[in-house]
Amino acid sequence: MSKGRIFSGMQPSGKFHLGNYLGALENWVRLQNDYECFFSIVDLHALTSKFEDTGSLPENIHHMALDWLSAGLDPERNIIFIQSQVKEHHELHLLLSMMTPLSWLERVPTYKDKLQQLGAQGKDINTYGFLGYPVLMTADIVLYKADTVPVGEDQIPHLELAREIVRRFNHLYRPVFPEPLAQLSKAPLLPGIDGRKMSKSYGNEIPYAASPDEIRGRVRLIVTDPQRVKKSDPGNPAVCTAYKFHEIFNASQLDAINAGCRQANIGCVDCKKNLAEQMVVHLADIHVRRDKYAANPARVKEILFYGAERARKVAAATMEEVRQAMHL
Amino acid sequence: MSKGRIFSGMQPSGKFHLGNYLGALENWVRLQNDYECFFSIVDLHALTSKFEDTGSLPENIHHMALDWLSAGLDPERNIIFIQSQVKEHHELHLLLSMMTPLSWLERVPTYKDKLQQLGAQGKDINTYGFLGYPVLMTADIVLYKADTVPVGEDQIPHLELAREIVRRFNHLYRPVFPEPLAQLSKAPLLPGIDGRKMSKSYGNEIPYAASPDEIRGRVRLIVTDPQRVKKSDPGNPAVCTAYKFHEIFNASQLDAINAGCRQANIGCVDCKKNLAEQMVVHLADIHVRRDKYAANPARVKEILFYGAERARKVAAATMEEVRQAMHL
Repeated sequence: MSKGRIFSGMQPSGKFHLGNYLGALENWVRLQNDYECFFSIVDLHALTSKFEDTGSLPENIHHMALDWLSAGLDPERNIIFIQSQVKEHHELHLLLSMMTPLSWLERVPTYKDKLQQLGAQGKDINTYGFLGYPVLMTADIVLYKADTVPVGEDQIPHLELAREIVRRFNHLYRPVFPEPLAQLSKAPLLPGIDGRKMSKSYGNEIPYAASPDEIRGRVRLIVTDPQRVKKSDPGNPAVCTAYKFHEIFNASQLDAINAGCRQANIGCVDCKKNLAEQMVVHLADIHVRRDKYAANPARVKEILFYGAERARKVAAATMEEVRQAMHL
Repeated sequence: MSKGRIFSGMQPSGKFHLGNYLGALENWVRLQNDYECFFSIVDLHALTSKFEDTGSLPENIHHMALDWLSAGLDPERNIIFIQSQVKEHHELHLLLSMMTPLSWLERVPTYKDKLQQLGAQGKDINTYGFLGYPVLMTADIVLYKADTVPVGEDQIPHLELAREIVRRFNHLYRPVFPEPLAQLSKAPLLPGIDGRKMSKSYGNEIPYAASPDEIRGRVRLIVTDPQRVKKSDPGNPAVCTAYKFHEIFNASQLDAINAGCRQANIGCVDCKKNLAEQMVVHLADIHVRRDKYAANPARVKEILFYGAERARKVAAATMEEVRQAMHL
């Protein structure tokens, strides 16, 4: 029995790294067992901050689909689609925009933050569409009457706003939409190989689609306890980045590794070799699936096409109700 | 030969009066001879200020279609349709919103004015959609690659903005849209029967669909020169509201009426009787057509349905170009 219906999306903004995967995608793979899921590559959202440079969109979309499918999202059980291919998103966005007070959008905490952040990078994205980001996100969710939305901490205010818009719509016209609930995903935070936040801009990432040899090469570079100079020095796992990786990819050996490090029974080189092999195993299925789909781009296109068709059916039924409620 | 392509729209916000007709509709009837025209009942725009009260929309839309058809707009030659029935409006609105700087919208002169004006009536319409009104208007126009837009003075800043958005799109992606040009309509200004601006809120209007007897009844109440108490007093046409009506509906007799009034040869009662009959003749065709269409609401529905189909074809072709240009 399904616990409910989920909508979630990701912006196709370039290649994934392993931190992104653990942060959201691995969670989705779990959720597909319990929920009816709509997973959308939200290319329209990507326009809010990248409208000037859309040339790489088609490739980014294809890569994101590959990433999702290799992670183990089942294209039969889930509805996987590209947002802009379901025109009901545009339609509902416009209708909801009519009843959304400007002040609600202006006081979303992430709004000014993100403007400043991107402004510091020399990007001026103070557009009408960027301000309306949460309206579009609301439309995405309620178009499928999703009751559950897996989100990170930073998305909570957006979801709060979505609930406010839903209440306003239901009150003004007729109760059409359920109020979507946030489901905080408690994803483990994978650091970069230098111990900072994993990010392509720091060059400290492990690519999500890394081959076994790439994994081994990157893991060899992970920083360990800087105080442990010789193998005979006892180490401190609490300050070791490799240990954080072990916590995620090698939970069963954790106690032994902790003790071995503190007692100087294992050296860092061997410890990381062990880690790399665990990661290779952990990510093996992903590689098998990735190779399969990468060799068959037509199948990926087909999946997205079929997903959009299924999404459209649900969305069209909702819009029928919306139009009736609004006398359109 | 067509001089170009026109897009124009009106909000279905209640019944028309004769001032509205002369202000815009009579101009459209002339334009249909020289241009390829898209005339749209812009119900989505009506939501910007009336989202809370949409119950009367269907009736208002039907009445507007009746008004247009009775005025003599040819449903074969022109494309007459309801905006919300062509989903490409929603789609293009969203895409254009991504590249429209917020500041462009905030500095539209009518924006703050209208907010204040409606605020004074106790209506809070400070919504996201209201701010985006000019973006939607731009989408309306350029979706059909209209090169000409008949506008009143107050709409000039909106059209200027539309041109700016078009230039930005064409520069960012590829030249897809022509820059629409404003065509100032020099419509005669018909006062209300008390000499003030004709407005339903003053109760001084002549309904557009008034029957001959209604016209006679309303014209009898038109104020004339207040200094002319007796029929033998010479009158002053310059301060007579009935004379302003003669200027519009009775141009051929104008000199005789002017002289007759100044020389006290015609009394006000007879002068207005004459005016009423001229108006009845002038508006006779409208009544014939109105009766015909009012008796056949299915035909009106059919016209709008057929219009939306034709509009959709043009709009879909434009959106195909837009999506290609944006790599969507």
